[in-house]
Amino acid sequence: MKKDDLTIVKIGGKLINDNDKLNEALDIFSQIEGQKILVHGGGREATIMAEKLGIETKMIQGRRITDADTIKLVTMVYAGDINKRIVAQLQKRDIDAIGLSGADANVIQSHKRVTDEIDYGFVGDVDKVNSTRLQMMLNIGLVPVLSPITHDKKGLLLNTNADTIAAMTSMAFVPTHNVHLKFCFEFPGVMYDLNDPKGMIPELSEAQIPEMVQNGTISKGMLPKIKNGFNAKSNGVEHVIICGLGNLLDSETATQLI
Amino acid sequence: MKKDDLTIVKIGGKLINDNDKLNEALDIFSQIEGQKILVHGGGREATIMAEKLGIETKMIQGRRITDADTIKLVTMVYAGDINKRIVAQLQKRDIDAIGLSGADANVIQSHKRVTDEIDYGFVGDVDKVNSTRLQMMLNIGLVPVLSPITHDKKGLLLNTNADTIAAMTSMAFVPTHNVHLKFCFEFPGVMYDLNDPKGMIPELSEAQIPEMVQNGTISKGMLPKIKNGFNAKSNGVEHVIICGLGNLLDSETATQLI
Repeated sequence: MKKDDLTIVKIGGKLINDNDKLNEALDIFSQIEGQKILVHGGGREATIMAEKLGIETKMIQGRRITDADTIKLVTMVYAGDINKRIVAQLQKRDIDAIGLSGADANVIQSHKRVTDEIDYGFVGDVDKVNSTRLQMMLNIGLVPVLSPITHDKKGLLLNTNADTIAAMTSMAFVPTHNVHLKFCFEFPGVMYDLNDPKGMIPELSEAQIPEMVQNGTISKGMLPKIKNGFNAKSNGVEHVIICGLGNLLDSETATQLI
Repeated sequence: MKKDDLTIVKIGGKLINDNDKLNEALDIFSQIEGQKILVHGGGREATIMAEKLGIETKMIQGRRITDADTIKLVTMVYAGDINKRIVAQLQKRDIDAIGLSGADANVIQSHKRVTDEIDYGFVGDVDKVNSTRLQMMLNIGLVPVLSPITHDKKGLLLNTNADTIAAMTSMAFVPTHNVHLKFCFEFPGVMYDLNDPKGMIPELSEAQIPEMVQNGTISKGMLPKIKNGFNAKSNGVEHVIICGLGNLLDSETATQLI
């Protein structure tokens, strides 16, 4: 039986901070045909709001900790402000969007990350994406918009990496769909040199990564996106693409993970 | 054909400000049998957060105005923090809650309130509750949790009275359901005297209201709840009840609007 196509787009970073860019992203997302899911990160909004509220960024051993004030803050900013603004803008474009945190309809269950070395606070590692529930929504024409807040089914809300949510959601649909996962950000793909717009890497294999990290082509911020992408790819996600707004629809010119 | 029962519970005020009270409310809400919807207000969280952020309450001619900073704030607090905390706590209790603003799945569409005298800012008056979408969610076992933020389908998020949302949602289900609308707050019903817990008014008719407002039995804060209740009642909602946590399940001892 031929599987349906499902496109999962992750937007983050500067696409969310800038309202014009966000609107452009939503214009383009609206044009994607077939079933689709949007995953958004938090951008700098949470940092700006934290400064206004006098909530300090807590670091332990160089790691960012999500304390009680911070999980409340990111739930407000990610699942409240950003998520609902995106949903309202998609509804304006006649896309029947539904904004979800992982707690809503229990779509993404996670557990609080605790390692031997460090308690990260209210940070969640994803256990299970409830693709059945998401599928029911897709079947009635809804377009899920996932914010990077999950829950542990024991009452805790947990801060969760949006790239991971996009990758895990993609993987959960592999048994039923041809999944196209697109990490969309402010560049047209992974760049050899950020100052040279023509220097995009068309194909990237996992074997290339260590060297590219060492020589600085892949920055620390880019690495989790790429790792999540290869995780999805090796778990059966058909296409994993890193792209910009200009090549979100026609991803031939973007970076393909192979 | 016998109609199904649907219980719509509105919680607000002090039940939301106090975490223990909120947990008690969710314990009791979880025990309601059959299809149900929870509507929550904002409590004092938004005021507290506004103070922290230095957002001043704007009043024009004695009316509260929702400016751009304030709609962002209430979206964060109501649709983000409060809504997701409630959903996570219901999920913990094995209630398959799904938190929604009016923008999500376009469940509540409103228009920006502008009168001849005053522009209220980003305040929405409800045009339409999409009971079809809510019914689809109820049919697959989901329990909608509605926050008091709606949208105009043109991209604007709008601050909307939670009592009105509860009443309008109840009315939208009249053609298909026997609807029980319960306004749940910190007293067991409408009280003759707030200092006398035994002085509850068991039945209240619309004709009694003007005198009770004049003699101060019904306060200004209570009036919108009661007006919304009578609006629902006169539009076919089977039972409209004003109750506390102690008589939410067994509402015989609460105030019935007749």
